Amino acid sequence: MAMAVSPLAVPLPELPPLAGVRMSATAAGIRYKGRTDVVMMEVPPNSTVAGVFTSNQCPGAPIDWCRASLKGGKARMIVVNAGNANVFTGKAGRDSCAETAAAAAKLAGCPPKQVFVASTGVIGEVLPHEKIVAVLPALQDALAEDNWEAAARGIMTTDTFPKASTRTAQIGDATVRITGIAKGSGMIAPDMATMLCFVFTDAKIPADALQTMLKKGVDGSFNCTTVDSDTSTSDTVLLIATGQTKHPRIHPDDGKKVLADFSRALNELLLDLALQVTGDGEGAQKRVRIDVTGATSAKSAKKIAMAVANSPLVKTAIAGEDANWGRIVMAVGKSGEPADRDKLSIGVGGVWMAKDGAVIPGYDETPVVAHMKGLEVEIAIDIGLGRGKATAWTCDLTHGYIDINGSYRS
Amino acid sequence: MAMAVSPLAVPLPELPPLAGVRMSATAAGIRYKGRTDVVMMEVPPNSTVAGVFTSNQCPGAPIDWCRASLKGGKARMIVVNAGNANVFTGKAGRDSCAETAAAAAKLAGCPPKQVFVASTGVIGEVLPHEKIVAVLPALQDALAEDNWEAAARGIMTTDTFPKASTRTAQIGDATVRITGIAKGSGMIAPDMATMLCFVFTDAKIPADALQTMLKKGVDGSFNCTTVDSDTSTSDTVLLIATGQTKHPRIHPDDGKKVLADFSRALNELLLDLALQVTGDGEGAQKRVRIDVTGATSAKSAKKIAMAVANSPLVKTAIAGEDANWGRIVMAVGKSGEPADRDKLSIGVGGVWMAKDGAVIPGYDETPVVAHMKGLEVEIAIDIGLGRGKATAWTCDLTHGYIDINGSYRS
Repeated sequence: MAMAVSPLAVPLPELPPLAGVRMSATAAGIRYKGRTDVVMMEVPPNSTVAGVFTSNQCPGAPIDWCRASLKGGKARMIVVNAGNANVFTGKAGRDSCAETAAAAAKLAGCPPKQVFVASTGVIGEVLPHEKIVAVLPALQDALAEDNWEAAARGIMTTDTFPKASTRTAQIGDATVRITGIAKGSGMIAPDMATMLCFVFTDAKIPADALQTMLKKGVDGSFNCTTVDSDTSTSDTVLLIATGQTKHPRIHPDDGKKVLADFSRALNELLLDLALQVTGDGEGAQKRVRIDVTGATSAKSAKKIAMAVANSPLVKTAIAGEDANWGRIVMAVGKSGEPADRDKLSIGVGGVWMAKDGAVIPGYDETPVVAHMKGLEVEIAIDIGLGRGKATAWTCDLTHGYIDINGSYRS
Repeated sequence: MAMAVSPLAVPLPELPPLAGVRMSATAAGIRYKGRTDVVMMEVPPNSTVAGVFTSNQCPGAPIDWCRASLKGGKARMIVVNAGNANVFTGKAGRDSCAETAAAAAKLAGCPPKQVFVASTGVIGEVLPHEKIVAVLPALQDALAEDNWEAAARGIMTTDTFPKASTRTAQIGDATVRITGIAKGSGMIAPDMATMLCFVFTDAKIPADALQTMLKKGVDGSFNCTTVDSDTSTSDTVLLIATGQTKHPRIHPDDGKKVLADFSRALNELLLDLALQVTGDGEGAQKRVRIDVTGATSAKSAKKIAMAVANSPLVKTAIAGEDANWGRIVMAVGKSGEPADRDKLSIGVGGVWMAKDGAVIPGYDETPVVAHMKGLEVEIAIDIGLGRGKATAWTCDLTHGYIDINGSYRS
């Protein structure tokens, strides 16, 4: 299905080579015709790896494979396919992962557990992994440092634009780079909100330090976004450090301080990618930012923000460019978190519309109407009870979502 | 907005007069033009009343009014308006309730706390209660026993058909009748899943026994249904007993046994009304029943059933007549309840499609495809872990939902 590119699409940034990372993409005919659908990403021996995966209780076979492989803390290769998620495929699914990893490991000269696999697409159909295995030698031959765009495109499913981000950070006097690609469009919800995201750095960072930073970064980015409240069975974020750039060695004890700037850059990059995913939400015509303040705790604020972000009535109102703050009140109330109707304030586009349990008489609607016509909608909610705050991002709910998901499989 | 009548609409059943209950409807121009929008329902002195209300933390002013009035256990009159929900309207909203009730009480010759008020429609606009007060005398003059249809139509907002149900029950040797009307179409979610429902009986039942039965009945009906996961700020179910039919007196001690048949009839009626509301879900083209078995507890089964019922991806697949059981697996997994992918079975229309963590090879898809084209879709989910079971009802998610909610207010 050819979908119009999201109005929230951003051009792919310039992505310089990252020392040690090479990639390639090819068309293996997994499901789509006439487009790339298998991607290989190779990193040098002794690269460290961290990973965060879906919280869905029925995860795909690749998630099980990656979780087990992650224990070794080392990565050498990632093989990703689009079009088939290899989820709910039983023993055949486990075999697909093992055989793909074994074949890739043989080419890379590493143990199979240093090969990470990821799959997205339709659920419940056996993955024809022999098609993937067949193209691995050609993928290896084609590995190149300047193939970021091909990789970002090759992992797409219903995405309408490729997603990537890059940052630099200081570790001591050295400058290191972090570059990531992501895909995701539907089945995007809290608790690991993109389907796939691969981030690389040329820094040399132990796996456990990577893992700590990645988990924190994902909590503040992907886990604050939602497209449709549906938590995927395939969500995967991997962060790999190739160690190709010389910088002060990271000791477990001083990691936090030395890595402060790296953490900042990583968090920025993850949020950038998460917002790109939100901006490519299925059918999205607008991105929505929801800032909650004055909640009884940060956790409570996040629950309220996500309740608003997941409300179909709020999202359809935004699609209709209607600053329907009544539906926002409803969504705050349904979150179940402490809220007092008569202390609640709601604003849109920087204009407070309702305060202390009632509409503000004579508030200026003109700037609100103009704001609602834009691509980025900002909602402010002050609960008026405490100091807890949180931000969530989502997109509007449009006919495009119904078009895509009412006919995705058939 | 003129919407096509839901394909799941049912004809209004024949509704005989119920001793002591009279009603009327009129057009007061609250919001809609050229249709009735204020309904009065009158019951005799000493009628007992029970009520269940929304769990939304930001309820409308009428909910506060009814909750306070319910403490008296007596009802004499209900005044309902459509088009304006009187929610988030501050002091003006509270005054609207008090002044409407005072005016109605004066006409009925009862204390204001025996007048119950209910409002649905747009949130956040001050209710022009003077328009309601102005029509009360005419409404009183028009009260009649055979006005059920007028009342059922007068409380509608985005509903496409009026909803009513009637049953008889035995109390001792006496036959009593229970009749209810309901409205609801969007903002329908667990924890009080219709917006308004008014049920009457000619039996003589103490308020506390009514309340116990009503709460149980609502838990097994309205609270097992969802249209869009958005919990309204106005949901109200009232059950009023006029005591006009002679039957053995209900003693608090023997109530359970004497009222067994009444409870059965009440539960049937509430479920009938709840399914009518689901069948009129905004944009609904199909009703969906989800039966979960084999969960670790009944509570867990209900959470799983509601996670499936609230999944936009499951609901859009059903709109597309696609028995996409992979999305059902996803929704089971995202519920967070105990589930083991490799013990899970999924069936649609009586055909098991997936079992033990994988598709059943060569299952017969023909009857499944035929079932998906029907108006009623049945999903069976066996978790394979225990004996907990539950059923939930929802509707599909279609372009109609976006049409209605992207332009409701403007």
